[in-house]
Amino acid sequence: MTYSTSTDLPAFDIVSLSNFYRNGGTVTEIVERVFARIAEVDDPGIFIHLGDKLEILAEAEKLGAFDPAKLLFGIPFAVKDNIDVAGMPTTAACPDYAYTPEKDATIVRLLKEAGALVIGKTNLDQFATGLVGLRSPYPVPKNAIDPTLVPGGSSSGSAVATAHGIVSFALGTDTAGSGRIPAGLNNIVGLKPSLGAFSTTGVIPACRTLDCVSVFALTVEDAWTVFSVAARPDETDAYSRAIPTTGYRAAPPVLTIGVPAAADLKFFGDASMEAAYAQALAALTGLGHKLVEIRFADFYEVADLLYEGAWVAERYAAVKDFFDAHEDKFHPVTRSIYGGAKALSAADAFNGLYALQALKKRLAPVIGSVDLFCVPTAPRHFTVAELEAEPIRENSRLGIYTNFVNLLDMCGIAVPTGKRPDGLPASVTLLAPAGKDGLTATLARDLHAASGLTLGATGWPLPAPTEAPPVVTADDLIDLVVVGAHLSGMPLNHQLIALDGKFSRTARTSGDYRLYALADTVPAKPGMLKVAQGQGSEIEVEIWRLPPAAFGRFVAAIPSPLGIGTISLSDGTSAKGFLCEQIALDTDANDISRYGGWRAYCKSG
Amino acid sequence: MTYSTSTDLPAFDIVSLSNFYRNGGTVTEIVERVFARIAEVDDPGIFIHLGDKLEILAEAEKLGAFDPAKLLFGIPFAVKDNIDVAGMPTTAACPDYAYTPEKDATIVRLLKEAGALVIGKTNLDQFATGLVGLRSPYPVPKNAIDPTLVPGGSSSGSAVATAHGIVSFALGTDTAGSGRIPAGLNNIVGLKPSLGAFSTTGVIPACRTLDCVSVFALTVEDAWTVFSVAARPDETDAYSRAIPTTGYRAAPPVLTIGVPAAADLKFFGDASMEAAYAQALAALTGLGHKLVEIRFADFYEVADLLYEGAWVAERYAAVKDFFDAHEDKFHPVTRSIYGGAKALSAADAFNGLYALQALKKRLAPVIGSVDLFCVPTAPRHFTVAELEAEPIRENSRLGIYTNFVNLLDMCGIAVPTGKRPDGLPASVTLLAPAGKDGLTATLARDLHAASGLTLGATGWPLPAPTEAPPVVTADDLIDLVVVGAHLSGMPLNHQLIALDGKFSRTARTSGDYRLYALADTVPAKPGMLKVAQGQGSEIEVEIWRLPPAAFGRFVAAIPSPLGIGTISLSDGTSAKGFLCEQIALDTDANDISRYGGWRAYCKSG
Repeated sequence: MTYSTSTDLPAFDIVSLSNFYRNGGTVTEIVERVFARIAEVDDPGIFIHLGDKLEILAEAEKLGAFDPAKLLFGIPFAVKDNIDVAGMPTTAACPDYAYTPEKDATIVRLLKEAGALVIGKTNLDQFATGLVGLRSPYPVPKNAIDPTLVPGGSSSGSAVATAHGIVSFALGTDTAGSGRIPAGLNNIVGLKPSLGAFSTTGVIPACRTLDCVSVFALTVEDAWTVFSVAARPDETDAYSRAIPTTGYRAAPPVLTIGVPAAADLKFFGDASMEAAYAQALAALTGLGHKLVEIRFADFYEVADLLYEGAWVAERYAAVKDFFDAHEDKFHPVTRSIYGGAKALSAADAFNGLYALQALKKRLAPVIGSVDLFCVPTAPRHFTVAELEAEPIRENSRLGIYTNFVNLLDMCGIAVPTGKRPDGLPASVTLLAPAGKDGLTATLARDLHAASGLTLGATGWPLPAPTEAPPVVTADDLIDLVVVGAHLSGMPLNHQLIALDGKFSRTARTSGDYRLYALADTVPAKPGMLKVAQGQGSEIEVEIWRLPPAAFGRFVAAIPSPLGIGTISLSDGTSAKGFLCEQIALDTDANDISRYGGWRAYCKSG
Repeated sequence: MTYSTSTDLPAFDIVSLSNFYRNGGTVTEIVERVFARIAEVDDPGIFIHLGDKLEILAEAEKLGAFDPAKLLFGIPFAVKDNIDVAGMPTTAACPDYAYTPEKDATIVRLLKEAGALVIGKTNLDQFATGLVGLRSPYPVPKNAIDPTLVPGGSSSGSAVATAHGIVSFALGTDTAGSGRIPAGLNNIVGLKPSLGAFSTTGVIPACRTLDCVSVFALTVEDAWTVFSVAARPDETDAYSRAIPTTGYRAAPPVLTIGVPAAADLKFFGDASMEAAYAQALAALTGLGHKLVEIRFADFYEVADLLYEGAWVAERYAAVKDFFDAHEDKFHPVTRSIYGGAKALSAADAFNGLYALQALKKRLAPVIGSVDLFCVPTAPRHFTVAELEAEPIRENSRLGIYTNFVNLLDMCGIAVPTGKRPDGLPASVTLLAPAGKDGLTATLARDLHAASGLTLGATGWPLPAPTEAPPVVTADDLIDLVVVGAHLSGMPLNHQLIALDGKFSRTARTSGDYRLYALADTVPAKPGMLKVAQGQGSEIEVEIWRLPPAAFGRFVAAIPSPLGIGTISLSDGTSAKGFLCEQIALDTDANDISRYGGWRAYCKSG
């Protein structure tokens, strides 16, 4: 779908909208455009409750002048209707369950405080149970790319609203894949954070031990901006955890990426999806990363636990009183699932936990063997008709690459990777252990950029990646200036790699250093010395970055006469790096400063 | 009870026995003594299955000559009868459940490999459910100090066997307090490790998510020796974790110790226990530590979850098929508890997990506010008659200070603190978050030494604490030589404290250093330089120890011209420490080497 472009209004990705405001655009114009677009799209299934335009305009008014400190200033967003927005009914797509909360869910409050504007509450698979987007008593949202296809769920409305560019981003929830599947089926980004990163206070639970709020966005950078605003520990949520909002970088290091072994891949007959996945993997290697095939049987066994095991009882427990009293008010598919949980005993529940723990134990070394995983987001597209014929089986097939993720305490991000020959979207999901949200987002951004795609269903271009991502907080790494045997490719460089060191950049010292070749060192090493002003040269160095513990261990292992001091760099900054005790240079050492660096000296020999 | 001392045989603590073997004593003599002592004690309730003396003598024979590398060479131990020993029946105090395993439980195998000898399988509260030691179809063991009192359970036989010095140590299990209560009631040490430290493979589960094997010993040092041998990750146990076997130190730092607020203490009318607890706290302050009163209501609420909540279903799940078929074969009290679990639903189980998570969240900052906790082990002594009158209520009172511990993932050690005026034992339990086993053991050792007690029921003296504990493995701390403003009491010393740095010792450098007062530094700082042999002096320094990450952060913050290199010490060793770039000393610095150290120089001024 394309939109009238008669106005000068910007694309709705956050970067473009923020630029629009920075250049004097008004929030009023954007709110008007939101409602115009809703009318253009004309899909009554997207919103269960649409905000009142006048009220939203009044909110916009209150924001005042553009404030760059508000990272989401004037950004319109939608909220899945199992998340509370003060004053709007929360239905969970079960009208008889509805209530109108007085308070925003914590995450909604944080986003509003950052300047974002709630447009409305979106449709979902009832009580967030399902991956299809059809299990709702309301009209169901249409897939934004092809209306004959299922939109994906359970966060169907949020994904479709984002894909159409009605809003810049939308909140979903994700227990089994509800934040990833609809992203994959609608050509948008779905960031499913580490469990506990976003507060779930004010969210109707599905499985409380596995639930998280998720973000749909048009670009990875937008999703990360929302993540960095919303990922805050919350005392009122027992499952809240402090998850790093760091790790989103200008450039990732070379990564080892686990992919399902060829024999374990399943596409249920969708050859185009299979080809698209192969293409996405080729893009990853094209970006310089390394793929490793992984046996996926144990992951699938974890996935099976989610709906076949005890966790269904969490869904029942979450609405027990209402279900027991009003079973007939449930969608028939949802009712059959929840009803099945009533018979499960506490012993069954614990047996489920034991089974999961055994699989976790078995998978820990597998998961630890790679930096992250890349899987198809969904194995195939399904038509609405196919799902109506087989509502349980096809739903469960949709989740084959998503169901295991929260049980294994991993984070993930679904990212568009291309358009298939039939025009339908292709998507992969990058997965990593909890806390590595930044790493998965970094790679997802690069993959999205490599895809050449436009955004969602809009035709808007993907903004060029900013040189330095706008929202990067301090990452608690320590810069280390290396001079000799630790340079890339040199004999001791592996020590830095083994300590999870990351190459940052090449640099030069200030002109106050002299470099010496130390006598009788194996491997050969230089020693660098600070000298009086005017007596030294600039020396070529590399800067590597290490976590504090790794840095500590590294320093502790440096042999005499080398040590770590402060190195002045040619750009006026300074960092910790290798120095040598002068006493070791007074006798046998050979001054090699004229080579300008250890690498040049080594080549000369 | 005292024993015939006509022989020269040693006390049975591991230190004394190992010395006996080192000096030429034979394992045969000790095995004979074990069986003689069993006869002397004459309590048919202790062992459910006693090993065959001839077979044990044959095992002893196989050990060969004393091998100091076997930390438990020739050490006799007993095993609670819910832990497998190959070839001996495992009954869990339910004869109809009995089976004879072909394999040792992992922990039994590890102890045997270290030279220990299994003497027999000990009585317990059936299926390890109970804290009293009376819930067994076998004759129940008698409290080793006063036979009218309950021995404590569930690990009753193991505790009593240890208290009588029949064995040097014994294995128990501890889900609700079964490794601590019987220690407290029998004047011995009960080490309940962090969950997952000891493998539970080959152990009949009670609550699989909370179970651990525990150690009863006559001294803390012995318990720690067993811990250091047995705490090994086990691939075959899904709940196994790598728990540090470090942290047991010659001297602990000054500790902040949380104690229940006076209003929250409960002794159920036992004024002697109350007085004894107050005395133990006085001993802690006498050792130089700081007490902080903590509201204990939330801890008690956690404790209530264990028997009133869903976790009882784990006990039922563990033996479901047997219970469903043979309910009548259970001890009546055990039957009533397990039977109650049948009605619990999976939703109940998850609701229990949620309630625990909420309490964990609330307690996390409380637990984080102190180094460890000190609680009474048991609130009071109970007579056998009292328990027979109120088998459930009094049992649950016994566990008031123990039940919450595993639910909160804490480690603990029960340690004797004194003899009450009525001759009965007093005990406290030190508790800390998982992984701090070494810290709790260190403090327990000091507290035990301060008590002046003899061991268990034996009259054997507590061996003087060895200067350096015999079993200390590398503790992953980095030594840092400080020279100037970071010395104890100097202006920057607080930086080391803030980084959790621990003072290790004073030392002197080798004679190859010169010390300079740096010009214009605030606070005033010296710079130390290595010089040619014969041109320097020994400089007084201090050695502090830092965790790697703290060390890394510390190094990263050191300003120019100071840095960290390798310092040679007068004892021939070397460590990382402060050095100064020579260029900074070529101009304004004042050579103060003649003072022999920064502290002496400062005093001189």
